[in-house]
Amino acid sequence: MQTIDRPISQREDALVIAGRTFHSRLITGTGKYRNFDQMRASIDASGCEMITVAVRRVQTQAPGHEGLAEAIDWQKIWMLPNTAGCQTAEDAIRVARLGREMAKLLGQEDNNFVKLEVIPDAKYLLPDPIGTLEAAEQLVKEGFAVLPYINADPLLAQRLEAVGCATVMPLGSPIGSGQGIRNLANIQIIIENANIPVIVDAGIGAPSEAAQAMELGADALLINTAIAQAHQPDLMATAMRQAATAGRLAYQAGRIPVKAYASASSPLTGRITS
Amino acid sequence: MQTIDRPISQREDALVIAGRTFHSRLITGTGKYRNFDQMRASIDASGCEMITVAVRRVQTQAPGHEGLAEAIDWQKIWMLPNTAGCQTAEDAIRVARLGREMAKLLGQEDNNFVKLEVIPDAKYLLPDPIGTLEAAEQLVKEGFAVLPYINADPLLAQRLEAVGCATVMPLGSPIGSGQGIRNLANIQIIIENANIPVIVDAGIGAPSEAAQAMELGADALLINTAIAQAHQPDLMATAMRQAATAGRLAYQAGRIPVKAYASASSPLTGRITS
Amino acid sequence: MQTIDRPISQREDALVIAGRTFHSRLITGTGKYRNFDQMRASIDASGCEMITVAVRRVQTQAPGHEGLAEAIDWQKIWMLPNTAGCQTAEDAIRVARLGREMAKLLGQEDNNFVKLEVIPDAKYLLPDPIGTLEAAEQLVKEGFAVLPYINADPLLAQRLEAVGCATVMPLGSPIGSGQGIRNLANIQIIIENANIPVIVDAGIGAPSEAAQAMELGADALLINTAIAQAHQPDLMATAMRQAATAGRLAYQAGRIPVKAYASASSPLTGRITS
Amino acid sequence: MQTIDRPISQREDALVIAGRTFHSRLITGTGKYRNFDQMRASIDASGCEMITVAVRRVQTQAPGHEGLAEAIDWQKIWMLPNTAGCQTAEDAIRVARLGREMAKLLGQEDNNFVKLEVIPDAKYLLPDPIGTLEAAEQLVKEGFAVLPYINADPLLAQRLEAVGCATVMPLGSPIGSGQGIRNLANIQIIIENANIPVIVDAGIGAPSEAAQAMELGADALLINTAIAQAHQPDLMATAMRQAATAGRLAYQAGRIPVKAYASASSPLTGRITS
Repeated sequence: MQTIDRPISQREDALVIAGRTFHSRLITGTGKYRNFDQMRASIDASGCEMITVAVRRVQTQAPGHEGLAEAIDWQKIWMLPNTAGCQTAEDAIRVARLGREMAKLLGQEDNNFVKLEVIPDAKYLLPDPIGTLEAAEQLVKEGFAVLPYINADPLLAQRLEAVGCATVMPLGSPIGSGQGIRNLANIQIIIENANIPVIVDAGIGAPSEAAQAMELGADALLINTAIAQAHQPDLMATAMRQAATAGRLAYQAGRIPVKAYASASSPLTGRITS
Repeated sequence: MQTIDRPISQREDALVIAGRTFHSRLITGTGKYRNFDQMRASIDASGCEMITVAVRRVQTQAPGHEGLAEAIDWQKIWMLPNTAGCQTAEDAIRVARLGREMAKLLGQEDNNFVKLEVIPDAKYLLPDPIGTLEAAEQLVKEGFAVLPYINADPLLAQRLEAVGCATVMPLGSPIGSGQGIRNLANIQIIIENANIPVIVDAGIGAPSEAAQAMELGADALLINTAIAQAHQPDLMATAMRQAATAGRLAYQAGRIPVKAYASASSPLTGRITS
Repeated sequence: MQTIDRPISQREDALVIAGRTFHSRLITGTGKYRNFDQMRASIDASGCEMITVAVRRVQTQAPGHEGLAEAIDWQKIWMLPNTAGCQTAEDAIRVARLGREMAKLLGQEDNNFVKLEVIPDAKYLLPDPIGTLEAAEQLVKEGFAVLPYINADPLLAQRLEAVGCATVMPLGSPIGSGQGIRNLANIQIIIENANIPVIVDAGIGAPSEAAQAMELGADALLINTAIAQAHQPDLMATAMRQAATAGRLAYQAGRIPVKAYASASSPLTGRITS
Repeated sequence: MQTIDRPISQREDALVIAGRTFHSRLITGTGKYRNFDQMRASIDASGCEMITVAVRRVQTQAPGHEGLAEAIDWQKIWMLPNTAGCQTAEDAIRVARLGREMAKLLGQEDNNFVKLEVIPDAKYLLPDPIGTLEAAEQLVKEGFAVLPYINADPLLAQRLEAVGCATVMPLGSPIGSGQGIRNLANIQIIIENANIPVIVDAGIGAPSEAAQAMELGADALLINTAIAQAHQPDLMATAMRQAATAGRLAYQAGRIPVKAYASASSPLTGRITS
């Protein structure tokens, strides 16, 4: 894994998912980059240590994506296979198993992570809570570390934690929409109740939104489109890395309360009269 | 001035105010710190190159603030004297002149900067547009580089630019309130129209809000209370520094458009059928 | 049913739930009023034609609530029994059956409505999607017109419609919180996809929020706390009635698009020059 | 003046501007209607008692607007001449005087009202605070009841009150933009401090936004584009009338506080156990 220069306080502030330790709290993806060079430069700039990969796309060498899996240095980056394109629990379970094989083939023998997506809806790409829960139960039984992608439903999050999921990944707004975090109140409740990491996934379009999620206490972020489709993806990747860190630090630093009235930076003692 | 490790792209992206070049886009203050050690650690962590100082407080050695001016290394940090505590144009003009003397005494012979505050209102500490414009005109004539603190009024900003101000400093929300940026639409219009730097001042409570202002295209930020009154000011200063940089980078990188619908990170080509 | 003076356009704009026609789109409740007189005055002022009643509270004559069921004129108002206080599907099914008996005893022989609430969580009172779906399936089989209270999850809403629910009732924010509609994006998607009425339930604190939901295209609103706990409940009931109507009319009237720039009300033709 | 059926509480809740009493708190305009019939139907539906008219447009019989002044029954509706199209104080003063003549010619001998607009900016149509204050001072001296259109600047509002203006009219967002109220915090401060009526003008696009302004304590609203350019202007006029009333009633009724957590409508006493 690459070493990033961090102050002490952060070096100790590790993210642990299913027993594995990460020092970056920003997870990225491989989709929608204009080419592999931009992808690699952006991954580097993001400082991420985990990348999600759509198993179906890679397995089938989808047009324009041949060689994707080989384009990334899996000695340095942990793979998070995802089940994008699965509309049912059964389908997602099958693809999760394929993903585990893929990770092994690429050298990550002990990688049992899966980002679980069960998405019957083509327009908003929103996940199905029932199918997700079903698939999660089965995959946990099969020894997977399951990271389910969900609507920000606090009770569903509790159910998924109860069946043994490694994290929950509530969405901020529809995938790729760049609308930011449009269900802040629910994400806040999920964070308050969870005993597993909460990763905000989907919808983040700008660093301010990345920071906002982390300030709330989210444990990590998954950001793909906002980086890959920016005019300059690597610059945006740097921005997102800094924003994720800034939000985390602010969460630890303890922000000031919001006040209804003003409070002078420079108290009015010591008036000068001519 | 201290040297901060920056990528090339940023090193070239300097902020120029009244002919003077700054590499940090975060300006901080000296008010409300619990002690000088925290203040110095936070200033360091913020990476700022300019600090605003309330002339009245320093001049009168207000209780608890003796030695403030001496506590900062003015070889490294540019002083931005402010006229906090002035309720009228006349008062502000007088204090601005005192500020120039103070900067000279502390070794900044050529410092003619003044952050102009004309604030008759004690509850919300909001600035008076009429008094501010009057004082700005006079101070510009006297050779000051005037940085006026204003409500986010686009037409007032144009007036101030027309009389020769060096920047405009619209407020996000009342000083010290931590409410964030509550007049985004107006700040956006000010940025769009201005030919001088726009510095968002007052109200920022969290890094997400700092990033948001920079993403809009603000040229710099002034943040004091949110740092000084955080539980751990130096951590928050680091967070604000990163957020300001993240927001600036995102502005340069070109963010994705906001869409009403989803857009798959992992296009659905290559479906696997069993 | 009481007759309310409406323009033609509205008289024709009826809300139909499970074959039953309503002319008011505001549903209220009986909880949290200071006394029965305020409750009755507010119900009158609200113009509502349907009221939800907590079956458990009425059945057990909970302290201070004796005679509640008798305090309302069920010749004029349709009863919507709810399963408040149920933490599991089984519990909710049992209470739904009790509710049907209660409605019969009070003279509504053909009332098979039930507002389904399955709420294991005591702090936020958020519904359990899994238990709700289970109970809904069973209750539909038993001939109930099921109006499930849900988190604003578009896929869950689709599932509930598919099993035969009469409506879906997504929450705006936690019950009684008065936070307004904090998941607008999801509610919008639910409305866009639904073929059954969408009733926004919980969280509305002010008429502006009631109007906002209706402008989006919600079919109806359920508002209780914001009326019952206002300083003057009957005034607030009138306000909510007007706001619900205003929002509905605006939805029909077709609002102007939001523009980035100004557009003069009074075009600048005909300049006068002295 | 037309009589509108109102409950007692409202009948007593009159709006008084410069000594003149109004029972409607919704002011409308004449611009942008598709034809005079729609305009008249909408004015009727709005229940408004005061309408603003662009003096320049009427005086010059601008193309398509011949006969506008005659199309309204000035026996029933109070005229609010406005200075739209004026870029300087001098220009606005001249047009205000023309407006007074126009009102007299149309039978309102004692009408000295003027909606003061000084707008040098053609893109956002935002008012100039300096020119507005200058013109207001002069017009007050000439005996006008001055209703100045301003950016939501609390200190400017105080200045205008101090020179004798009859109201202040802060804008919610740029004219005709339909963006709603984007500077709520400042409007709230203006309302809190003002001893003259505060009329929210410009930017309101939907009834929810009209209600929101009134809930805050605004005394009245001026809405033109959102009505005139709706698909069905008269329906929207009805909606806006109801929303204005709903917001006012809610302000009087005293809304519930916003809470972080839920609060059951149906307290959990009386649990049934099988």
